[in-house]
Amino acid sequence: MRIQFDETNLLAEMVGDAHGVRRSDLAASSSAALAALKSFQKRVEDGNYGFPHLPFQKPLIESVRRYAAGVSGSYDTVCLVGIGGSALGAWALDCGLRGPHPVQPAFSTRNPRLAILDNVDPSFMQAALESMNPRKTLVVVIAKSGATAETVATFMILQEWLGRSLGKKAGARIAAVTSQGKGDLAALAAREQYATFHLPDNVGGRFSVLSAVGLLPAALIGIDIRKLCKGAAAMTHLCWRPGLEENIALRAAQAHYALLTARNKPIQVAFPYSNRLWGTAFWFRQLWAESLGKAKNRKGEIVHVGQTPVAALGATDQHSQVQLYIEGPNDKVFTFWAVENFGATGRLPKTKWDLPAFDYLRGQSLAKLIDAERRATAAAMVEVSRPNCTFTLQRVDAEHLGAFLQMMEFETAFMGELMGIDAFDQEGVELGKKFTFGLMGREGYQSYRDQFAAYEKAAKALG
Amino acid sequence: MRIQFDETNLLAEMVGDAHGVRRSDLAASSSAALAALKSFQKRVEDGNYGFPHLPFQKPLIESVRRYAAGVSGSYDTVCLVGIGGSALGAWALDCGLRGPHPVQPAFSTRNPRLAILDNVDPSFMQAALESMNPRKTLVVVIAKSGATAETVATFMILQEWLGRSLGKKAGARIAAVTSQGKGDLAALAAREQYATFHLPDNVGGRFSVLSAVGLLPAALIGIDIRKLCKGAAAMTHLCWRPGLEENIALRAAQAHYALLTARNKPIQVAFPYSNRLWGTAFWFRQLWAESLGKAKNRKGEIVHVGQTPVAALGATDQHSQVQLYIEGPNDKVFTFWAVENFGATGRLPKTKWDLPAFDYLRGQSLAKLIDAERRATAAAMVEVSRPNCTFTLQRVDAEHLGAFLQMMEFETAFMGELMGIDAFDQEGVELGKKFTFGLMGREGYQSYRDQFAAYEKAAKALG
Repeated sequence: MRIQFDETNLLAEMVGDAHGVRRSDLAASSSAALAALKSFQKRVEDGNYGFPHLPFQKPLIESVRRYAAGVSGSYDTVCLVGIGGSALGAWALDCGLRGPHPVQPAFSTRNPRLAILDNVDPSFMQAALESMNPRKTLVVVIAKSGATAETVATFMILQEWLGRSLGKKAGARIAAVTSQGKGDLAALAAREQYATFHLPDNVGGRFSVLSAVGLLPAALIGIDIRKLCKGAAAMTHLCWRPGLEENIALRAAQAHYALLTARNKPIQVAFPYSNRLWGTAFWFRQLWAESLGKAKNRKGEIVHVGQTPVAALGATDQHSQVQLYIEGPNDKVFTFWAVENFGATGRLPKTKWDLPAFDYLRGQSLAKLIDAERRATAAAMVEVSRPNCTFTLQRVDAEHLGAFLQMMEFETAFMGELMGIDAFDQEGVELGKKFTFGLMGREGYQSYRDQFAAYEKAAKALG
Repeated sequence: MRIQFDETNLLAEMVGDAHGVRRSDLAASSSAALAALKSFQKRVEDGNYGFPHLPFQKPLIESVRRYAAGVSGSYDTVCLVGIGGSALGAWALDCGLRGPHPVQPAFSTRNPRLAILDNVDPSFMQAALESMNPRKTLVVVIAKSGATAETVATFMILQEWLGRSLGKKAGARIAAVTSQGKGDLAALAAREQYATFHLPDNVGGRFSVLSAVGLLPAALIGIDIRKLCKGAAAMTHLCWRPGLEENIALRAAQAHYALLTARNKPIQVAFPYSNRLWGTAFWFRQLWAESLGKAKNRKGEIVHVGQTPVAALGATDQHSQVQLYIEGPNDKVFTFWAVENFGATGRLPKTKWDLPAFDYLRGQSLAKLIDAERRATAAAMVEVSRPNCTFTLQRVDAEHLGAFLQMMEFETAFMGELMGIDAFDQEGVELGKKFTFGLMGREGYQSYRDQFAAYEKAAKALG
């Protein structure tokens, strides 16, 4: 397993003092980085945060594998009902290890599809139901709280849909992932005897990909979850090392923090040059946004911090976003995700067309071209003082993807420590949820319905 | 056809003076908005920009329809080879009018799949080839210049792949869209007798969805391109009206411009509450980024302007991005895209489970829930002074989608006029392209190869 981080193009020596950080400044901040590591380590030892332990949970890994082996062959679709952290990890794994959807091979009981129902758009729901056969569908419903409105609503429809075809046997086609012994989904699962897996209390949704939340759907679509956890475990050891040379999570956090504070880059572009890492970019988007976008710091002071993550796909988005990245406001830091070995080269034929736009490519390869495009884009950014850095994965397989996801969770946790915020809560979404409950007439939320009505009245008066 | 725009929540009266615009300021800027309209109208009359004419090109629409009718039934996959503006429009149309990929029904000759090859990732390419049958694939290659490296390379592989199965008949399974009478793709198409469609010189890639670039793939997957153009034509008439009440493109541009200049919101979040509009959000991302991200204004002064577009999907991203949107830096404007009628309601069953998280939802509908979520999110944003606005589409059908795309092109053009920039060029991507040519050994690009080598040497010295 080999994942590298190269921060050279963040340095002032490359992109100038106005937009880069000096190597000497980085060196000076290494004690702060090590303090962040220690501080986070203490919180983990105190039991507050559980994600660093996940890759080592052999009993869980084996129980997921046993369940998957038991149902294997009986379904051609795994229908995941979940949203946010309950869905994005599974998407990252499916896309990363089986390829992006539009070009996945036809699905079958030997190669089941993963259909993620992570929205309450009724036409999306209808299309999903029409595309699935209830007798060949396994439903995995995931909600830590057991009360997420979108997940509960979607599951109500799925459960009825299964029941219409399977009657009382429907329950055997449903697995639930939720908190142990609390919440309404846990209660329902116990009553209806769904297979049930638990999410530890100290693991939040966006840090849960290596719990049953990500491992169960992954195992059900044939991903080797032992290799995934093996890579993540090896990375975990590296992420606890107190040296910036080998601990790339800490080094990346330090570099990003230095740039964010000294040079104010409100946007980070996660820029994989790999279609397989596109799902991971969306998973990262949640991790970085929800963890670091905070109104208050740990002292309770109002700070309104956070960096807006943007997902871009190379080389594709060179033809969509790079014009802005090169010429627009210099308000971004770019993090390229490079892949050394794609497992294929994409050899270009030796077509003899005698046309200049074609001829220089003959006999070369897509692997060489995409590598050239990424390096060319990084160099063009340096020419116009746009700071950028690069993670390089040796390849995209279960071991490397597990390691990369775990590395980014550590990086985010370290970043939270450096910023002095709690990277593990998400208070900001509560008011919207309460307004929704009020609008849907849920008991106990009348006051939010009233507050919403007052807002709407004010808007109408202006409209 | 009914598309509305509501800017109430951009007003200072709703979100406060620090983050909103006063209604009186908007009124005062209406003459500038009308001047922008006139100025753009003059440029179109002078023949500089062609997109406003596209929906009215009946001969093109009919020739595309004739071609599609002629090949109908002979393919189960349309393989689009193109990148950026040559791919995003087709994706927006496919996703919008046939639904997002993971839940599209199995493809067949009666319901062909659209496989978009818009990247040079070799593992993506390999998976795509494995998923397609050369005897049932129709290749559409799209490049305005006829020289785009990614498109040319991908096409070389596709052409050889087709030829291996079909021999000399391969040419009959290829259609090209490119500039008339210039460029190497046009030369090759003429020589090999590919069916060929032309993109007018005064229509750039990101404004080309209603030229053959978008219409040809759309017609080949069964989309009613006459309805698409009918909606766009109706919208075009509205977009030339000199009144802010009925011209929503101008009103939206004015409101966004006022906010961008007076309250500096470097980020715009395009926030559809509809899975079908997800492709359109990525299409918009290119349109807004490439058109408005500019180093110089029309006077040649260095300005480095542009707003970074971000795509978010409601309600899904409430569980991924909204924490940052609500609590992080107040540096964004949110543009919700609402749908009135989803064509399905997603009725929730009257399950009697006696569990509070489920019970309030019984007998309600997903349509009501997603509507409540969007309104709740907008209200929660107003509570914390985050400016937002809303486009509402009556439904997502060919007529409305055609109109909505055309409306956004006009809005972007007006925005360019207000900002005093050329919204139709993309000089910023040239250096990266030249470095790539240099790295790939293309004749005439040795100096860029040398420049790259110097950059890499400097980086290595620091690394």
